[in-house]
Formats: sequence, C-alpha cells, structure tokens
Amino acid sequence: MTDNRIDEILARLQRVEDELEITRKVASYGPLVDSGSADEVAAIWAEDGIYDVDELYMGTRAEIHAMVRSDDHQGLIHRGSAHFLGPAAVTVNGDTAVAVCESILVVRHKERFIPARAGIHHWEFARTAEGWQCTRRTSRLLDGNADGHALAHAGGRGDQRPESIAAVVN
Amino acid sequence: MTDNRIDEILARLQRVEDELEITRKVASYGPLVDSGSADEVAAIWAEDGIYDVDELYMGTRAEIHAMVRSDDHQGLIHRGSAHFLGPAAVTVNGDTAVAVCESILVVRHKERFIPARAGIHHWEFARTAEGWQCTRRTSRLLDGNADGHALAHAGGRGDQRPESIAAVVN
Amino acid sequence: MTDNRIDEILARLQRVEDELEITRKVASYGPLVDSGSADEVAAIWAEDGIYDVDELYMGTRAEIHAMVRSDDHQGLIHRGSAHFLGPAAVTVNGDTAVAVCESILVVRHKERFIPARAGIHHWEFARTAEGWQCTRRTSRLLDGNADGHALAHAGGRGDQRPESIAAVVN
Repeated sequence: MTDNRIDEILARLQRVEDELEITRKVASYGPLVDSGSADEVAAIWAEDGIYDVDELYMGTRAEIHAMVRSDDHQGLIHRGSAHFLGPAAVTVNGDTAVAVCESILVVRHKERFIPARAGIHHWEFARTAEGWQCTRRTSRLLDGNADGHALAHAGGRGDQRPESIAAVVN
Repeated sequence: MTDNRIDEILARLQRVEDELEITRKVASYGPLVDSGSADEVAAIWAEDGIYDVDELYMGTRAEIHAMVRSDDHQGLIHRGSAHFLGPAAVTVNGDTAVAVCESILVVRHKERFIPARAGIHHWEFARTAEGWQCTRRTSRLLDGNADGHALAHAGGRGDQRPESIAAVVN
Repeated sequence: MTDNRIDEILARLQRVEDELEITRKVASYGPLVDSGSADEVAAIWAEDGIYDVDELYMGTRAEIHAMVRSDDHQGLIHRGSAHFLGPAAVTVNGDTAVAVCESILVVRHKERFIPARAGIHHWEFARTAEGWQCTRRTSRLLDGNADGHALAHAGGRGDQRPESIAAVVN
C-alpha cells in the first residue's frame, strides 16, 4: 500500500522534473545563441535533431553548430542581438514532449534596438540516456502565414508538428 | 509516521503541479490567440470567467470565444501579430491562484514588426473538476496609468485584483 | 528501504521547489519594478545583495530600494515602461543557484512603445532562512560587448559570474 503510493509519487515527480528540464533548455537557447555558445546550443539537440527555420534547414546537430559559428550569425551577435524567446508551454507525453513559444528578434542599429521579426517555435523533444533532447524545432514568422498559425495551434494544444507543413530542405 | 511523511509529500507535490499547470496555461495563451484557436483560448477560462481589457470587457467564456472569431482579431492575426507575454509569476493559495505577467503586442507593418502596446496582465485562477480555470483576467496598458501599476503591484505580491479597479463594463 | 525512497523523494522535491521559487522571484521583478514597488523589489535581494548594471552599481538592498524610489525611475514608470524580462533558465546547485534571462526595456513615447535597450541578466541566488535571495545580479547590454556575451554564456551553462567581468563601482 505504502509502496504503491510511493510509486505514484515517483511517477508524478518524474513528470514534473521532465517539464522543468525542457523549460530550462528552451529558456537557455536565447542567452546561448546570442553569446555564440555553439557547443551548448548544439547540445540542446539530438545528433540527428532538426532545426527547420523559414529560410534555413539544419538536419543535424553539426549543422546547427555550424550555423552558430557562421559569419552571418557572428556578425549579428557582434552588432548586438537578442533572440528573445517567451516562456515555453511544455506538454510531456511519456518519453516525448512538445513545447511552444513565441519570440522576437531584436537587433541593434546604431543606438537603437529594432524588432526585426516575430516568430513561433514548435519544439519536439525525446527522452534519451543523456536527458531530454530536441528532435525537431520548427520556426516560422508570425506574419500571417498559415504554417506559422498551424504550428502555434498545434504547440498550444501540445500536439506534434502538423503533417501539412512541408520541410523546406535546401 | 511514514504515512505522515507521504501525506506531506503529496501536498507539496500537488502545489508544484498546480503552479506548473497555471504556468502552462498562461504560456499557451499567446500561441493560441495568435493562431485564432478560439476553442482552446476560451477553454483557459471558466464558463463565467471574465476578461477585462482596457477597451473591452468580456464577461463569459462565450464572449472570449467571439472576440477571437471577430473580424478585428482575425484581421490582426492575418496581417501578423504576436501577443508576446512574458513568464508568469504564479502564486497558489489552496484552491485559488494569482498570476502576473507583462506583454508586448507586436504587429507586422509591411516588412517590419512594430511594438504596438505594452501591458500588464493580472490573472485569477480557481481549481475546478476540469483543472485550473481563469476566473478573471485584468489587462491594462503600461502607459503610466494607476490601474496598471496597481495590478502589477498586486500580482507581483500574489494578491487578488485590487478593489480600487473599476471594471469598465461596456 | 521505504524510508530511503522517501528521503530521495524529499531531496528531489526540494530541488523542484527551489527552482520554482527562483523562477517566481525573477518573473516578479518586471511587474514589481514597473509599478514602483520598492519594498518588494528590494526583498528579492539579500541585505548585502549586489545589483550591477552597465551604468549603475548598487551594493546593498537599501541602494536598490533607493533606485526604485529615485526621480529617474519614477519618471520612467509614470511615462510608461515595461522592464520586460524573458523566462529564466535556473540552475540550482545545493544552496546556491544561477539564473539567466534576456530582456527588453520598452518605454512609451507619445502613443508608441519604443524598445530602448536589450540586455542580459545573470542572477546569483543563495538559500537563506527567509528563502532564496539574490546575492548578485549582473546586467549588461546585448550590444555586442564581450561582458554581455560572457554573462550570457556563463548563465546559459549555469555557471557563476565570470571572474573577467569587472564590477564598475561608481
């Protein structure tokens, strides 16, 4: 009887810890990418994790690492940028999870900071021996396009990436 | 003795789960409202839940649903918008809770994204058989008005909506 | 055997509660400072807690209280401002913790809201008899300067403030 109660507690506690671990990883993305911390950014993803942004498709952890090290990204962060992500709504389902958040990208221009874009981010995570890892992140502009809305809708419900969204492989 | 320890653990674990559930619901609001997900937005509120914004008073879940479906809101999200809410500070007190967060509303204008307003959001939640539901959300501009400051102060302390704030019923 | 399992649960539950308490305190900062709630803002820090911002060094809780009451800050919040902080990534290590988040400062100018700055915030907390208190917060602009990047990198990894960062004592 007591052991049953303890088993139930352990299951609930694990779910809480899962949710907090994913929350922490998503919250660390902005500070890590804005400081050019390529190793730490890449480690949020699985080896074969996908980061599918409007204009860029990265299909492995190594490609994500290379994006952070690229001249484009380095130029952006040395000018001054905040990949400012909002709080993630995290839905854990056993060994997989979905998180969703919005963002604005703020870029310094002379003495001002300009919101260059607003976006939606749909994250899929999987439990691994090294903790939760992102298996696919799909990011789209919130400029009225249907895919952005579909990702926000799915993520807010805790659902996986909709089938309707074509991956734009370069 | 062991049973007492387990009872204490269960009470603390429940409080943690309560806080995370409310955090999740508040964090899901932006993605849901920006994708026009009227059913899911409305479900954050109780049937008779209130959403009291500067210029608009909604006194039921059905009115909140209608707001999301309105031409005004649909026009906004098809042009491109982010109701970008910050992380909620959540204070649980037994079967009720208060959450507070700030926000900016970012709207697309041609190729740019413009911060159209900054606001404060004071949420009151109640525990129900269907989980935590919002009983009243009060939102005001952060333009220096006293009600906005009073809501931010109360929310940051975990206090209920101040009596001084008149509901602007249309 | 049962008691061992319960001890392990209590330790894990405590860690979760620690993380949530720090999350809550960081999330309450914006609403409290934007409403001029000097007592509540100051109470986030330890008596000898430090708040080290680009242009201002505060070395005690009393100095932080005085900043909130200053004409400069009061003028800012009466014009209308949002010290809009993103979600904190919190790393607890026993009796100390590190949190990191980005922010934008949005200030009202006539009928518009202008992002005046984007910054990074590296928080150090310690467990005390009165709960978790901030022992040092270091904030820098995200304008490409190396200290801002070093703080974001350390915070995203859960590391303490880098030694390389000189405190700019007035």
